[in-house]
Amino acid sequence: MTQALLHPTETDTVESLDTVETPALVLDIAKLDRNVARLRSRLDALGVAFRPHVKSGKSIDVARRLFADGVGPITVSTLAEADYFASAGFTDITYAVGLSPDKIDRTRELVAAGVDLSVLIDSVDQARALVEAARDGGAMPGVLIEIDCDGHRGGVLPDDPALVAIAERLRDGGVLLRGVLTHAGESYGARGGAGLPEAAEQERAAAVNAAEALRAAGHASPVVSVGSTPTAHFAKNLDGVTEVRAGVFMFFDLVMHGIGVCEVDDIALSVIATVIGHRPEKGWILTDAGWMAMSRDRGTQKHPVDQGYGLVCDIDGKPFADLIVEDASQEHGILKLRPGSGAVLPDLPLGTRVRILPNHACATGAQHDSYAVVETGKREVTARWTRMRGW
Amino acid sequence: MTQALLHPTETDTVESLDTVETPALVLDIAKLDRNVARLRSRLDALGVAFRPHVKSGKSIDVARRLFADGVGPITVSTLAEADYFASAGFTDITYAVGLSPDKIDRTRELVAAGVDLSVLIDSVDQARALVEAARDGGAMPGVLIEIDCDGHRGGVLPDDPALVAIAERLRDGGVLLRGVLTHAGESYGARGGAGLPEAAEQERAAAVNAAEALRAAGHASPVVSVGSTPTAHFAKNLDGVTEVRAGVFMFFDLVMHGIGVCEVDDIALSVIATVIGHRPEKGWILTDAGWMAMSRDRGTQKHPVDQGYGLVCDIDGKPFADLIVEDASQEHGILKLRPGSGAVLPDLPLGTRVRILPNHACATGAQHDSYAVVETGKREVTARWTRMRGW
Repeated sequence: MTQALLHPTETDTVESLDTVETPALVLDIAKLDRNVARLRSRLDALGVAFRPHVKSGKSIDVARRLFADGVGPITVSTLAEADYFASAGFTDITYAVGLSPDKIDRTRELVAAGVDLSVLIDSVDQARALVEAARDGGAMPGVLIEIDCDGHRGGVLPDDPALVAIAERLRDGGVLLRGVLTHAGESYGARGGAGLPEAAEQERAAAVNAAEALRAAGHASPVVSVGSTPTAHFAKNLDGVTEVRAGVFMFFDLVMHGIGVCEVDDIALSVIATVIGHRPEKGWILTDAGWMAMSRDRGTQKHPVDQGYGLVCDIDGKPFADLIVEDASQEHGILKLRPGSGAVLPDLPLGTRVRILPNHACATGAQHDSYAVVETGKREVTARWTRMRGW
Repeated sequence: MTQALLHPTETDTVESLDTVETPALVLDIAKLDRNVARLRSRLDALGVAFRPHVKSGKSIDVARRLFADGVGPITVSTLAEADYFASAGFTDITYAVGLSPDKIDRTRELVAAGVDLSVLIDSVDQARALVEAARDGGAMPGVLIEIDCDGHRGGVLPDDPALVAIAERLRDGGVLLRGVLTHAGESYGARGGAGLPEAAEQERAAAVNAAEALRAAGHASPVVSVGSTPTAHFAKNLDGVTEVRAGVFMFFDLVMHGIGVCEVDDIALSVIATVIGHRPEKGWILTDAGWMAMSRDRGTQKHPVDQGYGLVCDIDGKPFADLIVEDASQEHGILKLRPGSGAVLPDLPLGTRVRILPNHACATGAQHDSYAVVETGKREVTARWTRMRGW
């Protein structure tokens, strides 16, 4: 056997959705641009800066649709993302996952290389580890304190004495405190938009109250950072907030549709698949897109409309009535009409190509190494954009 | 910014579980070897050949623990796996996912390059597409007909007239029929081993009956292939079967434990993670291993013992009583005691490293680019083994 057996993933020939190897990740660039413009215009009207979360795209090419040039600002979820985006010139970075002490050295390397990096902590122990590291006088990241606005995961409550204790520990050790950051993760529990204006206000109030508590104790808090895709789209007032973060807004997905943040037609990401078999007596159509292509995410499982492993469209992106990926093995998807549907199973002969909208764009994207970029309703693949992964 | 910012994934320094970047995929090589020896010895005693499914490991290094040398036989789930393993000398390959017509050219390229490839079909339409391709007289793969033994996904029933019709179409067109293949996918619904000997017998009988039906109609069926990890471990008699396939057996996981196929101590794959925070009032410990590191697989969700996103062990692989990953965001895991547990939450200070056993080894492995290889109970990383992905 020779290396010639290794199948090339890029060719000089023009790709099209009719011929691309399936399964493959497809990005509708017109919808991406529309989703970005929608949120940017909203946040401009509210008078706040925008620091998009690039963990959803994990791609320099996608990030350049958010910022045609410039250094950001961006949010990342791993230090590997920070390395990757910094190497492409995005140097205004917030690493928005609680910092473990053994990652401090990597954050310092980024700062030493010219990155304007903020890290996130929510305990005096983390502040102590940063202060310990800073003793050698070398480069250090700025620090944001994570605020818990809704009990979702980490953070300190705005009125917790730990908030000021962390700030004091940093000041005593000469480490720069930049402000506070919160994320309304519980907003993902909303349905049909209900409660989202209130969740956005709760998120805003928690961050602003925490910043005020710090200021009252004599600490500057120039950064007041909030954000989640649902709250970013429903906030009515962001007084006191300096920046908003959001990630999945750029692609949207069936979970965001169920939450009430987008229409199905806004979803920019899909997986193209090929029909490989039929079980007419069961109402099943089998495809080559299983959970390896779709991810195991079943984010709509508890929604009023359960989308299975995804909603099935024709090759041009038009949904079939009530046709979902009802079940999935590693490399098999089973298409079936929703329970109780009055629709007729479409005739999709062997070899037919379909496009499947994902539950969760971040999870589905992570199963693929690149995007096949198309325009809405067109089949020509105008570009292949690479994704990064790892930690 | 320069390329120097890109963090190296391999270094010349000796890695250890104390220092490796987290989250990371850890493979206990002694357990892998033990799991392989256990099933191989079982199948030797039953007098059948073994064609392991390399989709679980997706790694030449892992596959070489199954076959120190030689060409296989192996099973793959994608043609990218076929390319990858063939390039390393594994040339006896069955591609065990229903063939779509547009993949026929790739299978022919493999055969032309020297691979002894079998493909899987379950319809006259697929047979017709193969016959059409074969008209030019070029290299063609052999064909197996997929048999439905338990209603799990694809395949024809052993007594379906389509079985012989497919064989006739292939013979008329000069395409080689090699036999039949089935997979007892419904065996994953078992709990605690109950029903698995019966599922194995049902799988055997379906395959053998289908082969007999083909032979009665004048078609040779030298290959009678069955397999799933649960049935492979519980079959009492494999008369008439020529080979068994299984994949996840090499690593095992919490789903296999719940089904009753292995002990927790047999699980060879884990994810090492670092503690990044605490919410003592909620009984939560936060780590840097979210669903990006664990996968979204919640395969034990409907088991009597729901393991959340994974069962938590100390750095040396010893489980903590009742400590599971109760919830996960993209890069956050929330550790919590199982509901109703009488155990005490262990004291895991900031920076502590833990190892998390996965629900589903195939899905968790797919989130990572390499294995950090260790011996049971030891922390030195003796090798980094690369994984492949894509289609």
